[in-house]
Amino acid sequence: MRQVFMNAPRDVSVGERDDPKIVEPTDAIIRLTATCICGSDLWPYRGVEDVDHTPMGHEYVGVVEEIGDEVKTLKVGDFVVGSFVISDNSCEICQAGYQSRCFHAEFVSATIGTQADKARIPFADGTLVATPGQPDAELIPSLLAASDVLGTGWFAAVAAAAGPDKTVAVVGDGAVGLMGVLAAKQLGAERIIAMSRHADRQALAREFGATDIVAERGDEGVAKIKELTDGLGAHSVIEAVGTQESFLQAFGATRPGGHIGFVGVAHEGVSIPADELFFAEVHLHGGPAPVRRFLPELIQLIWDRKINPGKVFDLTLPLEQAAEGYTAMDERRAIKMLLEL
Amino acid sequence: MRQVFMNAPRDVSVGERDDPKIVEPTDAIIRLTATCICGSDLWPYRGVEDVDHTPMGHEYVGVVEEIGDEVKTLKVGDFVVGSFVISDNSCEICQAGYQSRCFHAEFVSATIGTQADKARIPFADGTLVATPGQPDAELIPSLLAASDVLGTGWFAAVAAAAGPDKTVAVVGDGAVGLMGVLAAKQLGAERIIAMSRHADRQALAREFGATDIVAERGDEGVAKIKELTDGLGAHSVIEAVGTQESFLQAFGATRPGGHIGFVGVAHEGVSIPADELFFAEVHLHGGPAPVRRFLPELIQLIWDRKINPGKVFDLTLPLEQAAEGYTAMDERRAIKMLLEL
Repeated sequence: MRQVFMNAPRDVSVGERDDPKIVEPTDAIIRLTATCICGSDLWPYRGVEDVDHTPMGHEYVGVVEEIGDEVKTLKVGDFVVGSFVISDNSCEICQAGYQSRCFHAEFVSATIGTQADKARIPFADGTLVATPGQPDAELIPSLLAASDVLGTGWFAAVAAAAGPDKTVAVVGDGAVGLMGVLAAKQLGAERIIAMSRHADRQALAREFGATDIVAERGDEGVAKIKELTDGLGAHSVIEAVGTQESFLQAFGATRPGGHIGFVGVAHEGVSIPADELFFAEVHLHGGPAPVRRFLPELIQLIWDRKINPGKVFDLTLPLEQAAEGYTAMDERRAIKMLLEL
Repeated sequence: MRQVFMNAPRDVSVGERDDPKIVEPTDAIIRLTATCICGSDLWPYRGVEDVDHTPMGHEYVGVVEEIGDEVKTLKVGDFVVGSFVISDNSCEICQAGYQSRCFHAEFVSATIGTQADKARIPFADGTLVATPGQPDAELIPSLLAASDVLGTGWFAAVAAAAGPDKTVAVVGDGAVGLMGVLAAKQLGAERIIAMSRHADRQALAREFGATDIVAERGDEGVAKIKELTDGLGAHSVIEAVGTQESFLQAFGATRPGGHIGFVGVAHEGVSIPADELFFAEVHLHGGPAPVRRFLPELIQLIWDRKINPGKVFDLTLPLEQAAEGYTAMDERRAIKMLLEL
């Protein structure tokens, strides 16, 4: 089968890989319908994370082709959406809603690699969720978004306690930040301030529910948020970048007692000054999103045409052109790109 | 009147200061019944914070001697307990329960100084809470504790989501950590693990409700907590120290999805690696405790003899001997010391 490999930074190719086989009785083999390139895939692309002929991809939707003997909730032919982290969905941590930190957690990106024709998904019952039926083609991008960026933005909005009567500010106008806007809207937020300097992303943010746009960054951005919130700061802030600057921007934009939901993958060297954290007096929650917690609800919202997160994909290419997809993402010519199979 | 001054690091004396007067119509003048020395007073004592003939003290109980024209909820003769932060208790931030970050917030320690015969308390209606009557002498230490260490330990336990069915670990065996143990017990925690290497503090922790003691620190302490919690970590962790080591210990001791309540005053230079924060996937909340939020409830619990936080005071001296009190706290000969007036 075909598999996208990142051979080295800025060196992506589509190669051959053996078809996956059932290894454990809890496995399923899926044939991918669509996959995509994540903002986090750009870290190794840019040389910030190690990479060496690594099979890429951790976002996926597809059709179940084969199941192990112990798989109970899925059958061959089911259309499924899966999380970017494998989970058994039954351990104490999963039951508490933290499937991304399951006792059996495994990042799909590490070994599985869903930028491919097929993939072996361990703990299929705990990781995959079947859609109510075979989806119309127009729903595929939205279902694919649920696999990571939508689930991650949703988790950030929940972690930021977005809801009725709340003002939510979103730091980061990438796909996850934009999904955070959509999630805040769905969760009933009264006012949603998107921080973005790019006209196309601003337009998409407004479409997803943003009521205000702040183009300023850093201290100026914080001052603008304060100005829009009677000097208090937002109740809820979504941090969807993961840099030192974005963290401090989030702290500054949140009122005392408010909530920050952070999902930007923080890298080594980024640190939070404990005295700023102390005197900010905010609630802070985040990490790798437990997408599995939200998948049933998100799939239903998509199925019922209540949300259209698939709009975040502004570039679609066949799998063979994966390398061009990486370049487009890296150069920010695309917010999020979909690879067709 | 008499006032304790810290002239310079390790140089404490009792000097003369003009009696306070009503300045604003919302002020009250109180005559102190008791006051005490806080762990945070040791920062300037040890030269970590600037100090220059500074009037000291921010914990206090006393009797109202005079009120401004606009004070409505208090009358002369009332026995009152006040928070270590002035608050109007009416702004939007106060109403959300964050009186320590009130629009009119002012640290009592900065200018007022309650290690003295009297003190002027601004926003008296919003800062002070009257007890149901004149307290018996035996209740004074407990009421004094409510002013800061109990209120702070209580906030930490609430921020850590301590409650029924929860395992709570407490990092720090100072007065605040011990009050965190007491609070976790009152909030219904099933299991309370106190981290302490000192026999006297371990004994007090057990008296306040600790079910387990862990004497190990750092990685070994974390391993021990994991061992006691099926490898998962505690649901709730109270961080009551404020150092880099204690923060990392708290992260390590908390299960994914768990809560850390942190109240140890973090100082410049202490920082939290964002990647550790990200992958710990915990809830983090803390800062200067909004003691005013909890005062009515804490006073009632003390009044009804349901809790006895005053036991945390293991040294009592007259105000004149304040310097000896600082030395005893600094040398850890006293957990918490009370100054009688």
